[in-house]
Amino acid sequence: MSTGLPMTVPDPSLPARVRIHEVGPRDGLQNEKTVVPTEVKAEFVHRLAAAGLDTVEATSFVHPKWVPQLADAEQLMPMLGDVPARLPVLVPNQRGLDRALALGAREIAVFGSATEAFAKANLNRTVDESLAMFAPVVAAAREAGARVRGYLSMCFGDPWEGAVPIEQTVRVSRRLFDLGCDELSLGDTIGVATPGHVTALLTALNEAGVPTGRLAVHFHDTYGQALANALAALRHGVTTVDASAGGLGGCPYAKSATGNLATEDLVWMLNGLGVSTGVDLGLLTATSVWMAGHLGRPSPSRTLRALSHQEP
Amino acid sequence: MSTGLPMTVPDPSLPARVRIHEVGPRDGLQNEKTVVPTEVKAEFVHRLAAAGLDTVEATSFVHPKWVPQLADAEQLMPMLGDVPARLPVLVPNQRGLDRALALGAREIAVFGSATEAFAKANLNRTVDESLAMFAPVVAAAREAGARVRGYLSMCFGDPWEGAVPIEQTVRVSRRLFDLGCDELSLGDTIGVATPGHVTALLTALNEAGVPTGRLAVHFHDTYGQALANALAALRHGVTTVDASAGGLGGCPYAKSATGNLATEDLVWMLNGLGVSTGVDLGLLTATSVWMAGHLGRPSPSRTLRALSHQEP
Repeated sequence: MSTGLPMTVPDPSLPARVRIHEVGPRDGLQNEKTVVPTEVKAEFVHRLAAAGLDTVEATSFVHPKWVPQLADAEQLMPMLGDVPARLPVLVPNQRGLDRALALGAREIAVFGSATEAFAKANLNRTVDESLAMFAPVVAAAREAGARVRGYLSMCFGDPWEGAVPIEQTVRVSRRLFDLGCDELSLGDTIGVATPGHVTALLTALNEAGVPTGRLAVHFHDTYGQALANALAALRHGVTTVDASAGGLGGCPYAKSATGNLATEDLVWMLNGLGVSTGVDLGLLTATSVWMAGHLGRPSPSRTLRALSHQEP
Repeated sequence: MSTGLPMTVPDPSLPARVRIHEVGPRDGLQNEKTVVPTEVKAEFVHRLAAAGLDTVEATSFVHPKWVPQLADAEQLMPMLGDVPARLPVLVPNQRGLDRALALGAREIAVFGSATEAFAKANLNRTVDESLAMFAPVVAAAREAGARVRGYLSMCFGDPWEGAVPIEQTVRVSRRLFDLGCDELSLGDTIGVATPGHVTALLTALNEAGVPTGRLAVHFHDTYGQALANALAALRHGVTTVDASAGGLGGCPYAKSATGNLATEDLVWMLNGLGVSTGVDLGLLTATSVWMAGHLGRPSPSRTLRALSHQEP
């Protein structure tokens, strides 16, 4: 790679700084077939923080029956005590919250659905029932001084219901904030959003009283739209973007797969746009190449492949 | 795939209609290892036009020694007489022009470089020498009533020279228009552009007297930036975007490869944005799946994979 690329050409309509919420160790690894040893996960989180990622979602306290890949949360957490980053963890219920707090978690995330069909499929509950389940969890987390992120899945489309009306996503979003979430990550779980839809949803949320500063975006690259959608969100003023190192989570070579936006592709764009992230792309690339070795498959990140000349 | 996706949410800041300049049969196939039989190429062009692509770059009259994949231009052209689309062809010099015109070509394209290093590598000439070579070709083409497209490679970055100064790209662009080109396609040959750079180059070209309506953009997805860059160009008012069916040309699994923006990924975005293209995504997808079968490898287009559940 020649030096001086990408050329930095700032766009004054974009935020000066963006916080990348790195989801590779949690959302990424939980969707990979290969189960990675706990020591490797710990090194992964350490290396991501050393690459400059200041928020690394570390693991999940969902029951191991549902997410066997992250069954070692209890063993992993003590290995992360000195990581210089915020380390949110996913908790599904009160028991998960208790375990996370006992291990020193200072930030938690809960996981809701904008559609009834996915709430049923993923949580075996209606949307109302799932919110009722989260309410005491969010309250207890806040009482314990923990920051709470809400994830909202299927904000744009759903495999069963098709296109999701904007007002429906706004309604469920509002309720997650009413429960006490500090931040909401808008998930395009099946990757069907396009940039105008992104802007329209963000605008509708603002009109419903949600400030942009409390919103994050979480795009999947199933249809190749993730980075263009992220750009639309940045233009709207969003400053928190979820991404997964090496595009971990949902192999793009598998049927109906829905890979995360790759952190490397996002950082390449933000470097070119002069938007500060604090991330060292060289250190990040080295980390993702190393993890790809553990997973035994190439990364779907195009920037990672270009920078590392990774063969399939 | 559920119906009703992507949801159409127009963005009033974008053009109502975009012309896709389909480069699969020429730029795509010339960079594929597999040489496709002439009959398959002819069917490919017919099917692309039937899918609604109104401009399909059909072949190249570069010497077969340099582009053996397209050595059958003479045999292919008579098989395309009834294709209901504009069918530009690439010509490198006077001899290529004569052959193309004799076969009924009504539109030609010439291929220049924004950098000295690539002019030397690709054309074995300086930029000045290559422009001097094109001058009589463009003049003769126009005299014969043919429309002339100029391609300009390495508009953003170059493997040898690194970042290419905007004023350098503007200078060579102006000269291609001065020669008589009707349209100029700005090529990000190694895929290193980011959206702010795109906007800045388009703005600088406008300031140098080039109207946006005579510009096309040609992005490669090497770093995953192609669609975000296309979006930036559309926001600037560009209405002609080059793309390659199935992302043909430059396999993303090969070393240092530089695949074209996939037409399917572009159409998915434009469908969501309510930007008219005339393209039927179902027919296009079927065509690209069929061609992937002939090439014996899966397409790198994410939309194509998602819609066709293509396995590697």
